[in-house]
Amino acid sequence: MTLEEMDSVLLKHKDMYMGQLFNFLKIKSISTDTGAIRQCAGVLKDDMEALGIRTRMMETDGNPVVYGELMNENNRFTLLIYGHYDVQAVEPLELWESDPFEPEIRNGRIYARGAGDNKGQLMAQLLGIKTYQKLYGELPINIKFVFEGEEELGSVHLPEFVDKNKALLEADLVYTADGSSHNSGNPLILLGVRGILNFEMTIKTADFDNHSGNTGNIVPNPVWKTIELLNTMRDENGNVLVEGFYDNIREPSQTDMRLLSSLPYDQKDIKEKIGFTDLNMDGETYYRKLTMEPTFNIAGMESGYTGDNAKTIIPSTATVSIDMRLVADQDPADIFRKIEAHVEEFDPDIKVTYRGAMHPSRTPSDLEIVQVVTDAVGEAYKKIPLVQPSMPGSLPDYVWTDYLGTPSIIMPYANFDQHNHSPNENLKVENFFGGIKCTCNLVKALGEYSKDS
Amino acid sequence: MTLEEMDSVLLKHKDMYMGQLFNFLKIKSISTDTGAIRQCAGVLKDDMEALGIRTRMMETDGNPVVYGELMNENNRFTLLIYGHYDVQAVEPLELWESDPFEPEIRNGRIYARGAGDNKGQLMAQLLGIKTYQKLYGELPINIKFVFEGEEELGSVHLPEFVDKNKALLEADLVYTADGSSHNSGNPLILLGVRGILNFEMTIKTADFDNHSGNTGNIVPNPVWKTIELLNTMRDENGNVLVEGFYDNIREPSQTDMRLLSSLPYDQKDIKEKIGFTDLNMDGETYYRKLTMEPTFNIAGMESGYTGDNAKTIIPSTATVSIDMRLVADQDPADIFRKIEAHVEEFDPDIKVTYRGAMHPSRTPSDLEIVQVVTDAVGEAYKKIPLVQPSMPGSLPDYVWTDYLGTPSIIMPYANFDQHNHSPNENLKVENFFGGIKCTCNLVKALGEYSKDS
Repeated sequence: MTLEEMDSVLLKHKDMYMGQLFNFLKIKSISTDTGAIRQCAGVLKDDMEALGIRTRMMETDGNPVVYGELMNENNRFTLLIYGHYDVQAVEPLELWESDPFEPEIRNGRIYARGAGDNKGQLMAQLLGIKTYQKLYGELPINIKFVFEGEEELGSVHLPEFVDKNKALLEADLVYTADGSSHNSGNPLILLGVRGILNFEMTIKTADFDNHSGNTGNIVPNPVWKTIELLNTMRDENGNVLVEGFYDNIREPSQTDMRLLSSLPYDQKDIKEKIGFTDLNMDGETYYRKLTMEPTFNIAGMESGYTGDNAKTIIPSTATVSIDMRLVADQDPADIFRKIEAHVEEFDPDIKVTYRGAMHPSRTPSDLEIVQVVTDAVGEAYKKIPLVQPSMPGSLPDYVWTDYLGTPSIIMPYANFDQHNHSPNENLKVENFFGGIKCTCNLVKALGEYSKDS
Repeated sequence: MTLEEMDSVLLKHKDMYMGQLFNFLKIKSISTDTGAIRQCAGVLKDDMEALGIRTRMMETDGNPVVYGELMNENNRFTLLIYGHYDVQAVEPLELWESDPFEPEIRNGRIYARGAGDNKGQLMAQLLGIKTYQKLYGELPINIKFVFEGEEELGSVHLPEFVDKNKALLEADLVYTADGSSHNSGNPLILLGVRGILNFEMTIKTADFDNHSGNTGNIVPNPVWKTIELLNTMRDENGNVLVEGFYDNIREPSQTDMRLLSSLPYDQKDIKEKIGFTDLNMDGETYYRKLTMEPTFNIAGMESGYTGDNAKTIIPSTATVSIDMRLVADQDPADIFRKIEAHVEEFDPDIKVTYRGAMHPSRTPSDLEIVQVVTDAVGEAYKKIPLVQPSMPGSLPDYVWTDYLGTPSIIMPYANFDQHNHSPNENLKVENFFGGIKCTCNLVKALGEYSKDS
């Protein structure tokens, strides 16, 4: 049995595999620390070359991409593996129970910054390939590797990098092991992400704050004006009234809807997790709203003073910070232009400031390759994977689906409670080896698939 | 000629009068400094007793009221003079050009904390009485004095004091010299104030902030909910939709409207002063909105984060701080109950927090006594007074009109640019002596009026 063979290799090399991960985790590759970033990229390059991967550092206007190829001209399928070697900062340090850059195992978990996000998952992919090599020798598919060093900064230069290197990056499938798995314990396969558009609107009604008595009813209030504006942008049912907002939204396919309705939905557990006890919708609605529908969220609003020391003023200015999660195939630039036009018509003096965006992505759920990956993952974990047509959050997945035109699948290896971006980040040892095994089995399955087809 | 006689007394005693004011200004009677407050009350009591005023300190639960009486059983008219001996704090001290408690004359202005607000105006009233005594001997009217020490804290204990001492404070007219005169240079007579109701609403939609991707479209946004609530409370034209809000509003009389339309209105100047260049209404509308109509002002609103470091969250809470300026005869307690009922019906979980209130007041503009005071003031200044049926801001004037049922007239002696509450507070020397003369002439005029009627 193949899986048993894999297990025996893992068991035999457990210490070596853990040692390689620990070495990698010890490097303080916080995205903004360019020295540590380059050191980390170098170690990664060495680790990749030890597997026979032709590796090079490719410069961007920021941190370098570590790019690698493991090719054989007889192979008919090319997999592109994406990950990142940079990590989040560690503050507040005092909340860590052990040094974030001195990995330590406690209760079956590896504690270190980057253990889950994303060094541990990245290393599981590399060691999965090593395991395959140990078991079967030569790989049955070509693999390209793109490991960037700026993911925690918002993948600032990745789109440009991918756009510039389309030919180099040509592949049949992009595979990312990042994020957290489902809390049910089932493997989770994600076929896309929601995009995001961040912007801020500043509504100014006077040059300075005024005394609310001396000018009350004379100087317009910027909060009331903001409310009037927002009333023109969204109705009470949450429908966005900006013209053309819904124009390019891709309808969920029948497969999408079937997948959504088959996802586990523990309402009680979700209520607790989101702190919203009035949650009252069925699972299909819940997942459809989370993955197939855009949002119009007010992330912040500020004007004047509140609290015990509130002043009786008419504030001169109100600021509202908005993030919209967008779904395939909404284009953030197009949506932003439509919003600008809408606000311009309401009042040309209102300032609309662009704060960043990421495109949505969606890999069609009825593609054959999706089934192949799902089966391989299910086989490795001996559990039926949950397949979600999109994750609710945002990642730069569109560079693969839109720039390369390649299907892209995200399969998180880390445990649900990995505490990424927080103190005591951790990766369960079983999740690390599960990821290695999953990668190994996927390589095998893709090899078989490419020979059959 | 009487006014010339007054001038000659003022000229003769100028140094003594200034000396008495300077002594008074040197005491650091910041409302919260109980030692200086008691020292100041003591000096004030001595000054009053030197004029033959029977004076006593009357304790409250805060700073004492210095109460005085100058009575003669033959007099048929009683005037109650109200003022305050406490002053604002002086910070930021570095912006003062001279020590705030070492009064100094520069360019015809007396610079000191309290010069305008209210020690200088208070002292002008006392010295006006002294001037009358020097010229004519015995006063033709009874005068009662209420000088409180907590005005700058919001007159916390004044309502209770007045309510408890109604019989003692019985009078035919209350006269206050506080605030700033009109920037046209004409004397300004105010016949009331707008009240105020401060409250805060807290709209909570979840127990904690959520990730805007992971929960977008699931957890309700508190800002959107606040907007929905506010939409039910006020229409786009600014009309308040809370049931019964307008019930008790007193219609402006014909005299009120005549007075409003005769007030000087320099639109260009006002635009600059309020920093609102789109101001576009006629003078009558401007003054009616400022004095005869209530407001629904949002003094502050806060939720989530804005600015460069905005986070993509669904905030759990929004807070909105509101002040409503109320007009006669709206009752803040009644309005607050109506608002509570409105919000309760919208969503009983929304927290409405009372933050304080002051009743409106209005002395009818067609009272004979108003004309008597207006004529006396006009005669003293040789300029026609502007009579405004209400000031746009709020003062505890209702304790006289509502608790005592006595007409109340506010006549600011200080110059328009007195910088009260700010560094370099000042009172023009001519305004100080103008106030003395005005008080003296008012006493004389009220004496004649009370003998005629």
